[in-house]
Amino acid sequence: MSLIREKEVRSEAPVGVFDSGVGGLTVAREIMRQIPNEKIVYFGDTARVPYGSKSKETITKFSRQIVHFLQEQHVKAIVVACNTASAYALEEIEKEIDIPIIGVVKPGAKTAVEATRNGRIGVIGTEGTIGSDIYTTYIREMKPDISVQGKACPLLVPLIEEGLWKDPVTDEIATRYLSGLIDSDIDTLILGCTHYPLIRSTVGKIMGEKVTLVNPAYETARELKDLLVEEELLNGKEQELGGDRYRFYVSDMADKFQIFANSILKYGILSARKINIENF
Amino acid sequence: MSLIREKEVRSEAPVGVFDSGVGGLTVAREIMRQIPNEKIVYFGDTARVPYGSKSKETITKFSRQIVHFLQEQHVKAIVVACNTASAYALEEIEKEIDIPIIGVVKPGAKTAVEATRNGRIGVIGTEGTIGSDIYTTYIREMKPDISVQGKACPLLVPLIEEGLWKDPVTDEIATRYLSGLIDSDIDTLILGCTHYPLIRSTVGKIMGEKVTLVNPAYETARELKDLLVEEELLNGKEQELGGDRYRFYVSDMADKFQIFANSILKYGILSARKINIENF
Repeated sequence: MSLIREKEVRSEAPVGVFDSGVGGLTVAREIMRQIPNEKIVYFGDTARVPYGSKSKETITKFSRQIVHFLQEQHVKAIVVACNTASAYALEEIEKEIDIPIIGVVKPGAKTAVEATRNGRIGVIGTEGTIGSDIYTTYIREMKPDISVQGKACPLLVPLIEEGLWKDPVTDEIATRYLSGLIDSDIDTLILGCTHYPLIRSTVGKIMGEKVTLVNPAYETARELKDLLVEEELLNGKEQELGGDRYRFYVSDMADKFQIFANSILKYGILSARKINIENF
Repeated sequence: MSLIREKEVRSEAPVGVFDSGVGGLTVAREIMRQIPNEKIVYFGDTARVPYGSKSKETITKFSRQIVHFLQEQHVKAIVVACNTASAYALEEIEKEIDIPIIGVVKPGAKTAVEATRNGRIGVIGTEGTIGSDIYTTYIREMKPDISVQGKACPLLVPLIEEGLWKDPVTDEIATRYLSGLIDSDIDTLILGCTHYPLIRSTVGKIMGEKVTLVNPAYETARELKDLLVEEELLNGKEQELGGDRYRFYVSDMADKFQIFANSILKYGILSARKINIENF
C-alpha cells in the first residue's frame, strides 16, 4: 500500500470514546457536532458504573480493559470521556499504547484558565476527581497564582441518572454542594463530571450569571480535532448517517443505555451491543 | 478423623455472607446478634456496587465469582445478604454448589405473610428486585390471595451511602416513592433492600404506625440458625472477640468500607482486606 493510501485508511478508522456509563455521551455529542466526519466507537461501562467513588487502582484496571477493547476495534485515537478515569488512569495508560489518547481534564482546565478574570476557579466533580486534585495540578502548571477550590458532589450523578434534571430535590442538593463555592467568590466553575452538563441550567441558576460555567466536553472535542489534524488523522471523507458511523458498546443493560443515549444525542442510535469487558 | 470430630470441624467453619457493598452488614449484624458463636466471612463487592440497576446475567456472574471466593475460604454455608442477588442469582447458584445457601427474600416474604392482617403487602427495593417480582412470587406461593405491590426506589441507596439517613431530602424522596403504597392501603411493608433498615425510622414515620415494617435481615438470621441446626452445622464453641471471628473482604475501597462498617456494627471490625474478585 502506498504511504498516502495507508494514511487515508488510518484516517478513516473510528475514534474510541469511553466513560463509566452514559455521561461521556455529552462528550461524544460534542465530537459529533464539531467533527462530523469522524466515526465513533463508544463504550460505556454500565456493569461497573459509577467510577467516581472507587479507587485509582480499580479505575486504572477498568480503563486498561476498555482501552484493550477499543484497540481491538482498530480505533485511531482514544478520548477518555470520564473525569475520574482521566484523573486516575490516563497518565499511566498513555505510556502503554501507541495511539494518541486524551482526557477531558486538561482541556477543561485550559478553558477555565482562559475564562477567569479574578483568578478564582471552582471545580465540581466526583469524589475521585476532586480527591485527585488533578484540575488544581493542571491549572497551576499553566498559571501558578490561580486559586482553585474543588467540591465533590457524589449525589448529582445518581440524581441525573434518575432523570431528575429539573427537580426541587436536585436544586436542594446542588445548592448545598455549591454554597461554599459561592462564598469563596469564584468567577469560573468547571463542570468536572461528564454528567453535569445535563443540569447546566440548574447549576447556572444557583451560581448566578457572574460565574462562567466551563463544560470540558466542548474543549475536548476541539483538542481532539487539533490532535487529529496534527497527526494527519482527520477523516476527510464525508460520512453518511446510519450504518457503522457511530457504534455503541456497553458492559450491561444495553436497552436502558439506548433509551438514555437517545435522550442526549441528536442522532438516534441504532443499537447498543453488550460485551464482556472483564475478558479484555 | 472420626465422624464426630469431622462434624465438629465442619461446624467450626465460618458462614459466608455477601452483598454488593455495605448493605449486607445489616444482615451480618443480625447473625452476630442471634448466633454469636458463628464465625463470619463477609464480602462486599465495592468495586462493582450497586447491583440494583444491573441485569440478571451480570448479577449472576458477579455472585458466582463471590461464591467461588467464599468456597475457597471454606465456609460451611452462604447467606446472600443482598435482595437483588437473591432475586436474580440464588436459584441458579444453589444448583451448582454442595453447601447450603440462603437468600434474604424468602425469609422476608414469610414474615410479611405472617404479619399482614388485611392481605395487602407492599415491597420497596431496587429496580432489579422489584422488576424480578420475586417477592410476589414467594408470597403467592405461600398464600395465593395476598395482594402485593412493589415500588422501586433507586435513589435511596445513594442517599443512604452518602449518610443522609435523617435528612429532609431523604424524607422528600422517600415520600414520593411511598405515596402510591400509602394510597393502596397496605398494612405491611417489606424493606426489600439491605440498606433500608438504616432509614427505618424515616420510612416508619411516612407510612404511619398502622403499617408493620418487615426487615428481612432478622428472619434471615433466624432461618440460618434453623438451617445450621438441621444440618448439624451449628457452632457449639464459644467465640472470643477479635482474632479471625469476623473477617471482611471487599473488591475496592477497604478503608471507606471499614469506616461505614464500624458505624453499622456494634463490634468494631479490625480491618477489611481488598481482593481481586474478577479472578474467581
